[in-house]
Amino acid sequence: MKQLNIALLGYKFMGKAHSYALMATPFFFKTGIQPVRKVIVGRNEGPLKQAAENFGWEEYSTDWREVVRRDDIDAVSIVTPPTVHAEQIIEAAKAGKHIFCEKPFTVTVEEAERSLEAVNQAGVKHMLGFNYRRVPAIGLAKNLIESGRLGKIYHFRAVYLQDWIMDPEFPRIWKLNKAIAGSGSHHELCTHIVDLALHLVGRINRVVGMEETFIKQRPAEAAGEQLATKLTAEKGATMEEVDVDDTTLFMARFENGAVGTFEATRFASGRRNHNRIEINGSKGSIVFDLENMNRLQYYNADDPQDVQGFRSIQVNEDCHPYISAWWPPGHGIGYQNSFVNQYADFFQAIADDTPCTPDFAEGLENQKVLEAVTNSIAADGWQEVG
Amino acid sequence: MKQLNIALLGYKFMGKAHSYALMATPFFFKTGIQPVRKVIVGRNEGPLKQAAENFGWEEYSTDWREVVRRDDIDAVSIVTPPTVHAEQIIEAAKAGKHIFCEKPFTVTVEEAERSLEAVNQAGVKHMLGFNYRRVPAIGLAKNLIESGRLGKIYHFRAVYLQDWIMDPEFPRIWKLNKAIAGSGSHHELCTHIVDLALHLVGRINRVVGMEETFIKQRPAEAAGEQLATKLTAEKGATMEEVDVDDTTLFMARFENGAVGTFEATRFASGRRNHNRIEINGSKGSIVFDLENMNRLQYYNADDPQDVQGFRSIQVNEDCHPYISAWWPPGHGIGYQNSFVNQYADFFQAIADDTPCTPDFAEGLENQKVLEAVTNSIAADGWQEVG
Amino acid sequence: MKQLNIALLGYKFMGKAHSYALMATPFFFKTGIQPVRKVIVGRNEGPLKQAAENFGWEEYSTDWREVVRRDDIDAVSIVTPPTVHAEQIIEAAKAGKHIFCEKPFTVTVEEAERSLEAVNQAGVKHMLGFNYRRVPAIGLAKNLIESGRLGKIYHFRAVYLQDWIMDPEFPRIWKLNKAIAGSGSHHELCTHIVDLALHLVGRINRVVGMEETFIKQRPAEAAGEQLATKLTAEKGATMEEVDVDDTTLFMARFENGAVGTFEATRFASGRRNHNRIEINGSKGSIVFDLENMNRLQYYNADDPQDVQGFRSIQVNEDCHPYISAWWPPGHGIGYQNSFVNQYADFFQAIADDTPCTPDFAEGLENQKVLEAVTNSIAADGWQEVG
Amino acid sequence: MKQLNIALLGYKFMGKAHSYALMATPFFFKTGIQPVRKVIVGRNEGPLKQAAENFGWEEYSTDWREVVRRDDIDAVSIVTPPTVHAEQIIEAAKAGKHIFCEKPFTVTVEEAERSLEAVNQAGVKHMLGFNYRRVPAIGLAKNLIESGRLGKIYHFRAVYLQDWIMDPEFPRIWKLNKAIAGSGSHHELCTHIVDLALHLVGRINRVVGMEETFIKQRPAEAAGEQLATKLTAEKGATMEEVDVDDTTLFMARFENGAVGTFEATRFASGRRNHNRIEINGSKGSIVFDLENMNRLQYYNADDPQDVQGFRSIQVNEDCHPYISAWWPPGHGIGYQNSFVNQYADFFQAIADDTPCTPDFAEGLENQKVLEAVTNSIAADGWQEVG
Repeated sequence: MKQLNIALLGYKFMGKAHSYALMATPFFFKTGIQPVRKVIVGRNEGPLKQAAENFGWEEYSTDWREVVRRDDIDAVSIVTPPTVHAEQIIEAAKAGKHIFCEKPFTVTVEEAERSLEAVNQAGVKHMLGFNYRRVPAIGLAKNLIESGRLGKIYHFRAVYLQDWIMDPEFPRIWKLNKAIAGSGSHHELCTHIVDLALHLVGRINRVVGMEETFIKQRPAEAAGEQLATKLTAEKGATMEEVDVDDTTLFMARFENGAVGTFEATRFASGRRNHNRIEINGSKGSIVFDLENMNRLQYYNADDPQDVQGFRSIQVNEDCHPYISAWWPPGHGIGYQNSFVNQYADFFQAIADDTPCTPDFAEGLENQKVLEAVTNSIAADGWQEVG
Repeated sequence: MKQLNIALLGYKFMGKAHSYALMATPFFFKTGIQPVRKVIVGRNEGPLKQAAENFGWEEYSTDWREVVRRDDIDAVSIVTPPTVHAEQIIEAAKAGKHIFCEKPFTVTVEEAERSLEAVNQAGVKHMLGFNYRRVPAIGLAKNLIESGRLGKIYHFRAVYLQDWIMDPEFPRIWKLNKAIAGSGSHHELCTHIVDLALHLVGRINRVVGMEETFIKQRPAEAAGEQLATKLTAEKGATMEEVDVDDTTLFMARFENGAVGTFEATRFASGRRNHNRIEINGSKGSIVFDLENMNRLQYYNADDPQDVQGFRSIQVNEDCHPYISAWWPPGHGIGYQNSFVNQYADFFQAIADDTPCTPDFAEGLENQKVLEAVTNSIAADGWQEVG
Repeated sequence: MKQLNIALLGYKFMGKAHSYALMATPFFFKTGIQPVRKVIVGRNEGPLKQAAENFGWEEYSTDWREVVRRDDIDAVSIVTPPTVHAEQIIEAAKAGKHIFCEKPFTVTVEEAERSLEAVNQAGVKHMLGFNYRRVPAIGLAKNLIESGRLGKIYHFRAVYLQDWIMDPEFPRIWKLNKAIAGSGSHHELCTHIVDLALHLVGRINRVVGMEETFIKQRPAEAAGEQLATKLTAEKGATMEEVDVDDTTLFMARFENGAVGTFEATRFASGRRNHNRIEINGSKGSIVFDLENMNRLQYYNADDPQDVQGFRSIQVNEDCHPYISAWWPPGHGIGYQNSFVNQYADFFQAIADDTPCTPDFAEGLENQKVLEAVTNSIAADGWQEVG
Repeated sequence: MKQLNIALLGYKFMGKAHSYALMATPFFFKTGIQPVRKVIVGRNEGPLKQAAENFGWEEYSTDWREVVRRDDIDAVSIVTPPTVHAEQIIEAAKAGKHIFCEKPFTVTVEEAERSLEAVNQAGVKHMLGFNYRRVPAIGLAKNLIESGRLGKIYHFRAVYLQDWIMDPEFPRIWKLNKAIAGSGSHHELCTHIVDLALHLVGRINRVVGMEETFIKQRPAEAAGEQLATKLTAEKGATMEEVDVDDTTLFMARFENGAVGTFEATRFASGRRNHNRIEINGSKGSIVFDLENMNRLQYYNADDPQDVQGFRSIQVNEDCHPYISAWWPPGHGIGYQNSFVNQYADFFQAIADDTPCTPDFAEGLENQKVLEAVTNSIAADGWQEVG
């Protein structure tokens, strides 16, 4: 059993999710790698120290540059805001560390290109946190498509709907600040459905997008508060500009002839985390909804005519991706399992010295689509990707 | 085209449903029979006259005995309260009329036996209004079972849940009066699910039942009011005894080894008309819910293991029962269509001189199950059927 | 009771639906108007005569011009292919007939303008067959929005998915021939969801669209066949060009600030008639799916926090639009009911001399959106509407 | 932070689930207790040693009696077959250990009584593994009922449907052997729904039950195999008697006047782990289905009449039980989370020296219901509970 000493950059929601996954992965998946929660890194010492204790880290540090260079660190997991990803990736790569980076990969295509170049030069493993690929239902969808059971793909349609900032009194936290977040719903949510599109359907050639910011000013965040869904502004807080999108929508043409629609929003009342995709092919269709993540709906056009219909498949069988490592059939898994499955694949790639997927090259392709949409909005018309 | 002159005994909710079906059936189904809405019969001349006008009847009458003997009447449809069914059937049969009778067939087994004897002696057609057999989804379920696609049947479970009398102020209408209704939820609702059980699974051998009347006294009905879901009692109305069951439940053993559960209630908050059955066999399962009547859920145990799941079949294809007479695929039908399908079968049986189904013999079998349940409740233990 | 003599132009699927509705409407709705199925009109005498008989028409005729001028005709219902609508409307209007016209209204905005002018000059009633407005669930959605219960509308998203021409052997029927149909999925399906958008959300300002024809050649239709979902081409049939869209998608900005997505296709495997709309507002959301037409999903953001969730409302209560004319609560209605509700409103408008809705002015607005999408596709970029 | 040294008796499916929970609980819940996976116990050294390694135990042992007496053991978790529970509980209690015991509690009421007496005399904490109480949706259901939001309860109906032994070639494993398992579907599955009934509705007074063994002989299990869903018998295996029930059903009367139905089966094709309960009260209803465990359906009879309907509540909000320890709203949890929530409560009770729930007294009540059903089947009639 090889020990892998990890440094985790970031300690909030994603910091918790990654810490959990680092703990739980070796329990379920015997990859030959034993991850060690070595150092957790952040800027605010008080809550950082607390996170280190809560999440089981040996040390904490406020100096990421120093940490990523430490000889006793083997791999770096980056879960910071996207505007700093590229810099952190490049430093960690220079230091020869394997890198796991949360989505969105970067803010710009140029950053993505430099990041990819850095890991390629360093020869380290690199993987991106598009965790929904690791939901067994998506794994099954991939299998159905790759084995030809959906036939030729005609349609991809995806929405990623949330509603956590609909209250106008919700403060202007960092996710609503372009200087830190880089973008709003587009980079945070569209990047997920773009990843599923690229993974399941293939390359995107052309896009046309639109965006809207429904609430253009919000009260400043009360000092010291962290990201949460029920934040409050200080009484009499000054109003600040929201300079990111509340919603971004676009249409796309895929290289293989399919057409696609994409929509991300934080203003869909009642939709907490509604990542829903539907794919229609010449031989069948699939529907996935993250709010019902143990299910895949599947229509097989070759079923006898009198019993055709969408099947609601409980993707909890031993024959389904990842499930045999978990529980017997019919015992559903949750959000956190996708992070464990993800690290299992990352560790296995390190153990076997095989490529990761999705890697930074796939992330670059994703970033090109996002940027083409952004350019399309600026230009008010269609844009080619890349 | 042969004219068939109809007399309809009863003119309220079921009177409307039957009148509609008599109008609509020849539009969709070319059976060779042209039904004529000749006479509608009731006891209360004011609303009866209005019903005759509203529902397109040539005449109305308050004397059912006179009507069923008229030479120009060919068939009688009986939609009166169940306590008078037997008498009306026997009179109509004596007069040589074909008879369509609403469910529940009768109140007692003895009445059912006399009714059956009467129609057999008269040699007339006889059919019962178990209209859910005429829902295409139930037709498909029957086809799946008969063709062996569910294999050996192990389980039948049915609930028929309503909530229209949960308000204690809801008055004691005739349906809550044993002298008129004969029974409460048991005869009104259980008879439907018993019919589906007998139709889809087969003969029932043994039962054990229980019942409850949750609200034992209700205000007297305001004079002149008809059955409706939002009735009001008069202010200061006297309280009257409710002497029928609000809910009846029972377990059963079928002749073929299957086990069954049955439950009817008028006290299931939020369930307006929730007639739901599930059947599990060695090769598959089906689920039907009347509140979603255009669908049948079907599980095929022979599907490939990675794509097993309940299919939601839209039972609106040309290959499904009755549908080719209606609309193109994907255009759902409603409650009323089941009455039209039912009369189409009744007329076809008359035109072709073939047996009807379900006929009074099947109704007698149904009545025996209901009575065994009633006896089981009285005896506080298991009872054999028949 | 005033008699209204009707001429129906067209006799296939829509001919059947309208004939049925003309028969059934006075049974359920007492508008003071008694429609008479006077003349049914078509070009092919054999099947036309059969339709007249099947659907209960007094006469049939192959000369629509002669019929619309007859003194004994009071109203004309037009259910012919859209390329002839304008001409038929204008002739009927000149003859002073009330006009009911099926969707899509016309092929071009110019035709729509001329049609509207004609009925305005004639002072006749004019109504369009956007029958989904008459589904009670849509009526409830309208009530919720108008009463402010959804708050400010942010998002409209609609798909209208079908799958009836996915088989490449399916012949090139008239609906795939631009000279007759005018357009493919766009005019047939998008016009429905555009109507719901205009009705529920309001005016659309800008659009950007795309379209695709996945199967570009199909075998010629076997002579004499009618529209059906299971057509077959003749053996060795010549191949003909498909010159209409198989799918059309577009994004839109509404005047009130909402954003919208629209998609129509005939290539969504497993979706027979999947017209699904979702609307998100500041106070709540609604979802409607035509394949489950007795339901409206509704989310109320003001519900107590621990019990927030989409409600599945069975829109079958007396308090819901149209329902009190039909059946007691919990007895679902079907596709055909929307046509009856529609004629009830048309007759009532005639009886009371009040305006119809949706009228041809609303149809013109709809047509402008469709045409802006078509222009947007031609210009490969955004277009203003009108 | 107080260390709590645990011994786990059993190492298969439940051994894995408990080991996981012991690892994960302190990550999410800060109870003041730090559990230590000290010794795992089983009879078969080979797989036991493997389990100890896989599941992170310091030691393993084949002698449970020796282990439960060790001074360095503070608490014992019992996940062995039910026939040995009582003996192990009594020994552990004598040794003064806190005890967590998996369901079913015991085989007989007499064993349950002796077990309860033992823990009471020892003054140790005792808790039972009815983990579904720890599903947040069930916690919400409990809150709704306790706060009166369902009003007076009229109906409880529960099914627990599985299908894992439907194949006649599936071998006669220990769960089908009465000498080891004590019972079949009745004790394994009914005990869960009885627990939910007692927890949510209250005491049960009377029951009448039935049972069936559909497949009465099965091939002997191939030597050395463990419980799994895809077991195979050896070729030419001898046939052995199945002496437990494949299905058990019963009806019940609750002390508070409600009526209930219960059904457990391993022969419901397509139902992997379908634990579904519905409760109807005078003010509303709830529905829970374990296969969709992040949801609770709730009907509020006080909703405005036009928007009444079952809500699909995603029970993933901070205001819902346990959720604030997990992930932000909209990030669903899985089967394993219920075990973590359960140990969190167990540890908190130990830390605070407060009673556990469900404790062995509640388990005794449960056992009395199970035994009354068994007696009812033997006596072929109703039985009083206790």
